[in-house]
Amino acid sequence: MVSPATTERPWTRKDFLGIRGLERWELERLLDTAAAFKEVGTREIKKVPALRGRTLVNFFVEPSTRTRTSFELAAHRLSADVINISATQSSLTKGETLKDTARNLEALLADIIVLRHPSAGASQFLAERLQASVINAGDGAHEHPTQALLDVFTIREKLGRVEGLHVVILGDILFSRVARSNLHLLLALGARVTLCGPSTLVPREFEVLGCTVTHDLDAVLPEADVINLLRVQHERQRKEYFPSLAEYTVLFGLTKQRAARLKPGCLVMHPGPINRGVEIDSEVADGLQSVILEQVTNGLAARMAVLYLCAGAQGVR
Amino acid sequence: MVSPATTERPWTRKDFLGIRGLERWELERLLDTAAAFKEVGTREIKKVPALRGRTLVNFFVEPSTRTRTSFELAAHRLSADVINISATQSSLTKGETLKDTARNLEALLADIIVLRHPSAGASQFLAERLQASVINAGDGAHEHPTQALLDVFTIREKLGRVEGLHVVILGDILFSRVARSNLHLLLALGARVTLCGPSTLVPREFEVLGCTVTHDLDAVLPEADVINLLRVQHERQRKEYFPSLAEYTVLFGLTKQRAARLKPGCLVMHPGPINRGVEIDSEVADGLQSVILEQVTNGLAARMAVLYLCAGAQGVR
Amino acid sequence: MVSPATTERPWTRKDFLGIRGLERWELERLLDTAAAFKEVGTREIKKVPALRGRTLVNFFVEPSTRTRTSFELAAHRLSADVINISATQSSLTKGETLKDTARNLEALLADIIVLRHPSAGASQFLAERLQASVINAGDGAHEHPTQALLDVFTIREKLGRVEGLHVVILGDILFSRVARSNLHLLLALGARVTLCGPSTLVPREFEVLGCTVTHDLDAVLPEADVINLLRVQHERQRKEYFPSLAEYTVLFGLTKQRAARLKPGCLVMHPGPINRGVEIDSEVADGLQSVILEQVTNGLAARMAVLYLCAGAQGVR
Repeated sequence: MVSPATTERPWTRKDFLGIRGLERWELERLLDTAAAFKEVGTREIKKVPALRGRTLVNFFVEPSTRTRTSFELAAHRLSADVINISATQSSLTKGETLKDTARNLEALLADIIVLRHPSAGASQFLAERLQASVINAGDGAHEHPTQALLDVFTIREKLGRVEGLHVVILGDILFSRVARSNLHLLLALGARVTLCGPSTLVPREFEVLGCTVTHDLDAVLPEADVINLLRVQHERQRKEYFPSLAEYTVLFGLTKQRAARLKPGCLVMHPGPINRGVEIDSEVADGLQSVILEQVTNGLAARMAVLYLCAGAQGVR
Repeated sequence: MVSPATTERPWTRKDFLGIRGLERWELERLLDTAAAFKEVGTREIKKVPALRGRTLVNFFVEPSTRTRTSFELAAHRLSADVINISATQSSLTKGETLKDTARNLEALLADIIVLRHPSAGASQFLAERLQASVINAGDGAHEHPTQALLDVFTIREKLGRVEGLHVVILGDILFSRVARSNLHLLLALGARVTLCGPSTLVPREFEVLGCTVTHDLDAVLPEADVINLLRVQHERQRKEYFPSLAEYTVLFGLTKQRAARLKPGCLVMHPGPINRGVEIDSEVADGLQSVILEQVTNGLAARMAVLYLCAGAQGVR
Repeated sequence: MVSPATTERPWTRKDFLGIRGLERWELERLLDTAAAFKEVGTREIKKVPALRGRTLVNFFVEPSTRTRTSFELAAHRLSADVINISATQSSLTKGETLKDTARNLEALLADIIVLRHPSAGASQFLAERLQASVINAGDGAHEHPTQALLDVFTIREKLGRVEGLHVVILGDILFSRVARSNLHLLLALGARVTLCGPSTLVPREFEVLGCTVTHDLDAVLPEADVINLLRVQHERQRKEYFPSLAEYTVLFGLTKQRAARLKPGCLVMHPGPINRGVEIDSEVADGLQSVILEQVTNGLAARMAVLYLCAGAQGVR
């Protein structure tokens, strides 16, 4: 059962906006709480009454079935009620501002607002103005902190630790909120991080954050404990940054041949949805080192932890 | 707790189609019941089991996130199950008639159908043919009775009464179901109502209903106890009726300067979503006299009252 | 109450993919279970806790309000949680394969996936790869087994038996999954089936399945115990197969005049939505012999039975 020791330091954040700025004990509390909730998912009845009578609003200004569904299921497991609002339905299309929409959601006594938004900082903007808990489900190229949480939860579960591991993040780092959140979380927990990809998408400047940058995948492959592939996102990329897909696969695709050079225990991760034959070969995606589907399962537990801690935080309601 | 005195006159309407035609005791029962439900919204667990096992269908032939969400939350609070159907999804696009769609919903054993429809009389048409409760969530330019209920509930809560107050409704009255429902409800409860706006949108003919019509906002401003602004609705208006937006703001916008001439206790209301800088200045919308967000909160309580009374009415099921 | 005798043969199928291939005792168990659930629908509280804590995903790659809503309500009645995913929302539009989407749904610990898909065999493809229960809600021109189940349930309930009855299925048989599933189910239970319609849409080749084919509606009309009309589906039909709508109505429409020649006890059925004045006259659709709306009500009970048996099957979870 989920019963955080009462002698623990109390959780006080009502919002979960990004990994950056959280203290190490907070990050570890999130991971530990996720572990407790993962156990709930193995039961016959997967629900706990923790958030009964609370309302979560999934407010997705950018579409994402995957993340929306994961939050919706996490809320159901916690016995919360869920309302889904997508941008095309919402008053935003009638010219209402984000702030007005959010204040209206709060006036409807929503307890938790899960926001996916194309602008960096959108969830912070709301969180500062609302009493409701605001959970960042991806804001522009800024952060996607629940994705990082589930990624690192998966690493910790599979490899028993995070500290001291060498994690390679591969792909379009420049525009990736997943990469940013992962980088912050991994460094905070003591991992070593290498960012790898085309020089246009992985500029050297990232090294100021405390990681290594390389453009030579084949050199770094045999040294990785974890390789986390990002999705090639046609939508968000401007042509001038990106080589052709065929060229990308040749230089940075995790082909069967390349995967053979990984350490035997190296984890292969991907936030999905995968482009088979582009950034990853089917044999690798479905292979023994792949934990891609476990990431999805762990996303539920990680999101339950976030909702549970933030919506239960002192003074939230 | 919600415990209507058993010696009260029993509620017998299964439908809520409009304000017009309801008796005064019914209107007051709705407001009193809403007050009881508002208290539920302040609790840690905001749910009551009143409609457990009942199914509400939100059937929105016109889109409206705001109203749909409010009904969905109200149903959750009453422990009902909710199904959302929008016109673009529904068989209506396959040429099915409204009557057939509705009879199908009833055959699915829906207990309550909340209908938003572009045609005046659509909810009445259904109510006459179905055993299910039909709730009008806006039908053409006819009525939007739950909006009026929440508006008047807000006035009564803030000012302690409705009778004898002077309410100014400002804007596009001609095409507004919100204005119509408010007018009927306010007059039924003994308020004095002035309709104000451009002469093309607020014709003198409205005076036969028992209100006053004026086209001079500045003259009526200092006399109002409540000023209820309507949204400038570009979608519904034909160009020939409407001045330019800039001209509208000059003549009928509730600017900061105009708001300074209101009585100190005068309430500023708006059904939302607001057009900041068009029909209302931001300083006024966010000012001390504005009860715009409280209207949203009260919408939940008002809709819970409607669902509770109509779905619990004798002979409904 | 639903209490299947414990001495009964245990249900072992986790999936419901088609009528074809099921044994007669399985088909009868489904119908008997539906009868038990129909009784639940008559109660004040229409819910049973059978699937509490289970998650059903309505995954509709083709839109269908009617079927989606029916499954959603059936799941609510069984106390399951429901997630709706439509194709336009889903990652399918980002190029993900059906298999990957499904594996992701399973990784989210979905217990039941209800799939509507334009390709024949799509639900079988999933069922073979997933531990979750897969329910076919229509796959291309292949099968729509819950529709057949509710149709035959309605016949059995109204006429007391299926064996020995003469059922005429009328319309576009060639492209109809409803016709195929009905044909299999009726023949398995001992009914006599005649397929009727234009020769382009009802080829003689169907007779190898054990039914009779005719292109002369007027000849077969007086002999039918049941006449099941299919919807004229403009969307799916290519012009070359189909006469004009007016011509169709003249030759194959169930007009008032034709209906007068039916046996007095003959049932008129239609899966809906109906095209009034095309395949059926309004007087007939709304007449005493029509059981069209009862079919809709019975769809709930039939789908509850399918969900209950398959999701409760040994070894599913």
